[in-house]
Amino acid sequence: MTSSAAPAYRRMSVEQRRTQLLAAAVDLFGHRRPEEVSVDDVAAAAGVSRPLVYRYFPGGKQQLYEAAVLGAAQELIGRFAVPSQGAPTRRLADALDRYLAYVDEHDAAYGALLRGGSVAETSRTGAIVDDVRRRAAEQVLIHLGVTEPGPRLAMMVRSWIACVEAVSLTWLDEGKRTPLGELRDWLVDHFTGLLLVTAASDAQAAGAATAALAQETPDSPAGALAARLAPLLPALAHLLRRD
Amino acid sequence: MTSSAAPAYRRMSVEQRRTQLLAAAVDLFGHRRPEEVSVDDVAAAAGVSRPLVYRYFPGGKQQLYEAAVLGAAQELIGRFAVPSQGAPTRRLADALDRYLAYVDEHDAAYGALLRGGSVAETSRTGAIVDDVRRRAAEQVLIHLGVTEPGPRLAMMVRSWIACVEAVSLTWLDEGKRTPLGELRDWLVDHFTGLLLVTAASDAQAAGAATAALAQETPDSPAGALAARLAPLLPALAHLLRRD
Repeated sequence: MTSSAAPAYRRMSVEQRRTQLLAAAVDLFGHRRPEEVSVDDVAAAAGVSRPLVYRYFPGGKQQLYEAAVLGAAQELIGRFAVPSQGAPTRRLADALDRYLAYVDEHDAAYGALLRGGSVAETSRTGAIVDDVRRRAAEQVLIHLGVTEPGPRLAMMVRSWIACVEAVSLTWLDEGKRTPLGELRDWLVDHFTGLLLVTAASDAQAAGAATAALAQETPDSPAGALAARLAPLLPALAHLLRRD
Repeated sequence: MTSSAAPAYRRMSVEQRRTQLLAAAVDLFGHRRPEEVSVDDVAAAAGVSRPLVYRYFPGGKQQLYEAAVLGAAQELIGRFAVPSQGAPTRRLADALDRYLAYVDEHDAAYGALLRGGSVAETSRTGAIVDDVRRRAAEQVLIHLGVTEPGPRLAMMVRSWIACVEAVSLTWLDEGKRTPLGELRDWLVDHFTGLLLVTAASDAQAAGAATAALAQETPDSPAGALAARLAPLLPALAHLLRRD
């Protein structure tokens, strides 16, 4: 040390410092509501001064929040990527396990981002959320073997993703009472049910459903659902009788 | 006329004037994005001066918007109330017809309200939207004969309502390409499918589903779905074989 006036914090390259500040912001905004995070908090977490944060993020809190949302989105999108092997409902269950673990760990931030009305919300953060939804839908369609979905299949997958979000928010509202495994199983069953009723009125969905069911086994989630649905079939019999 | 300086607009009681201004606000905010409505627009639509609008609504645009959202919510809630007679899926189809007609007529306002990120959005408008969802869920549960839903059935209905909103927004994004009747039929089928898979793992839902199915007929929406699902059943048969 040649000068005792040197800053107490470690010397980093511009890129290293940017990465460090961003990591601090992702962590803070990922665990608290945006209202509860200040530029001072980010500076303190990174062990730097407030002006230094502004040098890297001149837009201050708003810019940090948008960068943090983008970072979270990239992690979340990565969680949807599961190997294209095994029963499709098993793969879907694996992806949901990762997604719901994220919701659990980042509860305050997830709620604030999806519920809207946050002071830090902008058209940019809204676009990032929409991008996560679009990428998640693409992944789901890949597992169904569909690359060019027609309007009905596209709407079905978007609709299911909206349900996953609604169920996640309800679960947080309720204080996480339902075990995550039950929530996951029900969301997978929901997907199977939605695919079947869509298959009933759309040829592309019917083809995808038939191909997906051929890959299912008695011990996959779809198999377990079929076994539990079988006792309900008699209640449907009178609907098929035409007098 | 004793004075030529009298205001050009008609004399009204305080209550009449308030009702008139509110009606103008409901109409304007109901057909445009909140960003596109000013206090001057409300004044012009009601044929009064800007200061008069402020005398009745000192909170200006924000207060007018919240009052308009509340007015719209009351109308929307009314559309869910359908007679408790006939096949449950037929009643659900009737309620959806009214709901989707509202979405169609008030497209810009519906999108702005539900998509979030609007400048006029507040915790109060968010609470009003949540209230519409809760009341809609209550109506749906009444048609299922359920007054005290357990966690699974409550989540199922909330989840389906989230899907109705997601599908409505997708439909608006797509420039209303799908005929509303098709959208309605698919959403009713979605509900039936969701109820069945929930019934597969929840005793209360199983009871409600069995009771609801007993009221369905071959020519009700549930009957039409059963007839279209029947050809898909062979694709499920291998799931029920245990070796």
